[in-house]
Amino acid sequence: METDPLLQLRVFDLNCWAIRYLSKRRQERIGLIGDTLSQEGFDLALLQEVWSESDYGELKQKLAARYPNSHYFKSGVIGSGLCVFSRYPILDTFLYQYSLNGYPYMLQHGDWFCGKAVGLLTIKIRGVNFHVYVTHLHAEYCREKDAYLPHRVVQAWELAQFIQHTSKGADVVLLAGDLNMHPGDVGIRLLRSWTGLRDSFADTERFEGCEDGCTLVPANCFTSKMELQPFPLGIRIDYILYKGLSRFAVKCDNLVTTTGTAPGHSIPYSDHEAVMATLCVKRREEAQGAGAVEPELVDVVNEARTEVRVGLHAAERQRYSNGRMAILALLLLLLQVAMGLSSLASWDSQQPFPKFSFSLLSLLATVVLLVATVLYVFHTIEVRMLQGTEDQMQLVLQALQDKLSSM
Amino acid sequence: METDPLLQLRVFDLNCWAIRYLSKRRQERIGLIGDTLSQEGFDLALLQEVWSESDYGELKQKLAARYPNSHYFKSGVIGSGLCVFSRYPILDTFLYQYSLNGYPYMLQHGDWFCGKAVGLLTIKIRGVNFHVYVTHLHAEYCREKDAYLPHRVVQAWELAQFIQHTSKGADVVLLAGDLNMHPGDVGIRLLRSWTGLRDSFADTERFEGCEDGCTLVPANCFTSKMELQPFPLGIRIDYILYKGLSRFAVKCDNLVTTTGTAPGHSIPYSDHEAVMATLCVKRREEAQGAGAVEPELVDVVNEARTEVRVGLHAAERQRYSNGRMAILALLLLLLQVAMGLSSLASWDSQQPFPKFSFSLLSLLATVVLLVATVLYVFHTIEVRMLQGTEDQMQLVLQALQDKLSSM
Repeated sequence: METDPLLQLRVFDLNCWAIRYLSKRRQERIGLIGDTLSQEGFDLALLQEVWSESDYGELKQKLAARYPNSHYFKSGVIGSGLCVFSRYPILDTFLYQYSLNGYPYMLQHGDWFCGKAVGLLTIKIRGVNFHVYVTHLHAEYCREKDAYLPHRVVQAWELAQFIQHTSKGADVVLLAGDLNMHPGDVGIRLLRSWTGLRDSFADTERFEGCEDGCTLVPANCFTSKMELQPFPLGIRIDYILYKGLSRFAVKCDNLVTTTGTAPGHSIPYSDHEAVMATLCVKRREEAQGAGAVEPELVDVVNEARTEVRVGLHAAERQRYSNGRMAILALLLLLLQVAMGLSSLASWDSQQPFPKFSFSLLSLLATVVLLVATVLYVFHTIEVRMLQGTEDQMQLVLQALQDKLSSM
Repeated sequence: METDPLLQLRVFDLNCWAIRYLSKRRQERIGLIGDTLSQEGFDLALLQEVWSESDYGELKQKLAARYPNSHYFKSGVIGSGLCVFSRYPILDTFLYQYSLNGYPYMLQHGDWFCGKAVGLLTIKIRGVNFHVYVTHLHAEYCREKDAYLPHRVVQAWELAQFIQHTSKGADVVLLAGDLNMHPGDVGIRLLRSWTGLRDSFADTERFEGCEDGCTLVPANCFTSKMELQPFPLGIRIDYILYKGLSRFAVKCDNLVTTTGTAPGHSIPYSDHEAVMATLCVKRREEAQGAGAVEPELVDVVNEARTEVRVGLHAAERQRYSNGRMAILALLLLLLQVAMGLSSLASWDSQQPFPKFSFSLLSLLATVVLLVATVLYVFHTIEVRMLQGTEDQMQLVLQALQDKLSSM
């Protein structure tokens, strides 16, 4: 049983696509985002892909009056891209970096350098404890042959576990961000069923915006039309999820997405659409306990575990081939040292020694040895983390099955 | 007001020093640890530095009857070394890897490769929720000129934050491990004052073992006598810390450390002494709320922030010098390409071209360029994480000062 609304919260979520030197019309768009946030007066703005701290600084300056509290989550080589602007004081923050996040040598994808993470901030509004999470998961570059799926599943699992373990003192949990997963994907099912978070698009009373709530749409002039070809309406990968705990209930009164352009302007804020939700928090008359374990949860954890195992096999293969390459390069170098020494020993002999090609070959062998060793170490860490995730999932499955069988 | 004891918990904590090929009499000691744990029947054994999974496997097999539940936390290149054996079912686990943990090129110290982390496990004993944390922080190699102090302070801060954010649903919090900090060090003061954890050595009713509770003592045949020279009694760096939350109170009835050798044997379990605590959990008649903010907490966070800032300056200097080195190597390579091309253009001329020294120089420049670039990226991440920690501490200080001024 619920009582009258205690408070309303207006939340703005956007992947800003603000990569210095690469994103089109970046400064103009950052200006536009700042103007809109100032005028609209949300309670919370949760942004992703604000890669440059000068852009964050510009936003902070512009929004100081309406949103006196803000935080930028620093991580990785170029930052996490995650930042938040709040009308209410931020009491504490905490950052969890995902243990797997692509490969440093995939420079064209660059996710590794971003230090993908989930940021938590705690806020208290009229006595209600909000735990607000903002995140951005690894991108999907090819849906048919998605080499990053195991990493994204591990991230979804770590995100779910992080939320579960850090939200025990919360009255309301709120998660916003670019999850890079379609609504039916295994990662999002895992996240939702494990945490009990509800999807504002599925639950909203009123919706206005792109069909199916899509946030990457062909109508947006910055999206790649080719990538969206299999999805004529676009795809939904940006979410606002929430749940009320114990004595509090949350529902979504109103959800709006932009539709290709920023309202009243000729260009969009970003290549993603913004998601804006009006959430309503009510006090329950009776505290709600933890729900029963759903048998579907066991299935989805099992499905996720299969993906992790697929990733584990791939990582083991990669590690093996890099190890082999490093050993071959080392053998070649040793052989060259032996040849060099023997040629020194017979220095006086008139046999010509091909110094130039010899040293070119050493250069090659050294570079291969260095690179292959670093990659071997990297893939060993990947293997460990995938094994660790599988172990954790196994343990959780055991605990779930025990609970189910005792029901 | 407290009632009769609800339950007693016997906890065993040990840094096992079980590094394959490096630690002396490793297999013998692992056998000994397994035998003792089997015979003694603790409730929880929290171990660190079990680096080899085969050692963990051996312990697991030996302890299956007495401790049917166990978990090994996988991370880093060679694992986290952290594992736990429990009489009670482990309901869930979660791992948090510290964002900073030394340098990969400090091979002689090797901490970077270990993926230092804190592992959390949740256990329910007779209706009481235990959140048990096991960890191992970065080692201190030189107390006078401790280059790793900022990293260890960041780890202590992250450990404290991790415990604070993940223990809201707990009735009892328990932390055991090798913290690599003396009792008065800034990191341990930060950890204790921020989390409210109590030190079993300071609080115990009865103590038996090394003087001052030391866990690295000259009487142990595996410790380095030279390192311990300034501390004739030894040092205390292994801890069992605890707190009761809300309706539960915990106290330490009995604390024991080994004294240089394993009881009844001629050799020690490890180069560290084992710490064994008997904790007593009582139900309070009245739930205890969060305590008031202590002004000392502000001082210790400020002190820690100063250390982080010192680390930040060092990291910035390192990043700068690696960046400069990479640019110089790149310039040298470009110069060589230009020289090579010009020599090709004048191929017919009779001027001799020093191909051998030329290609040796290229080899050197390429290796320097590669290594300096990787190190530049590494130190950039270090700078980001130190800045992020400083920001978090700043935010917490602000919140603490607001609380203090409103008191």
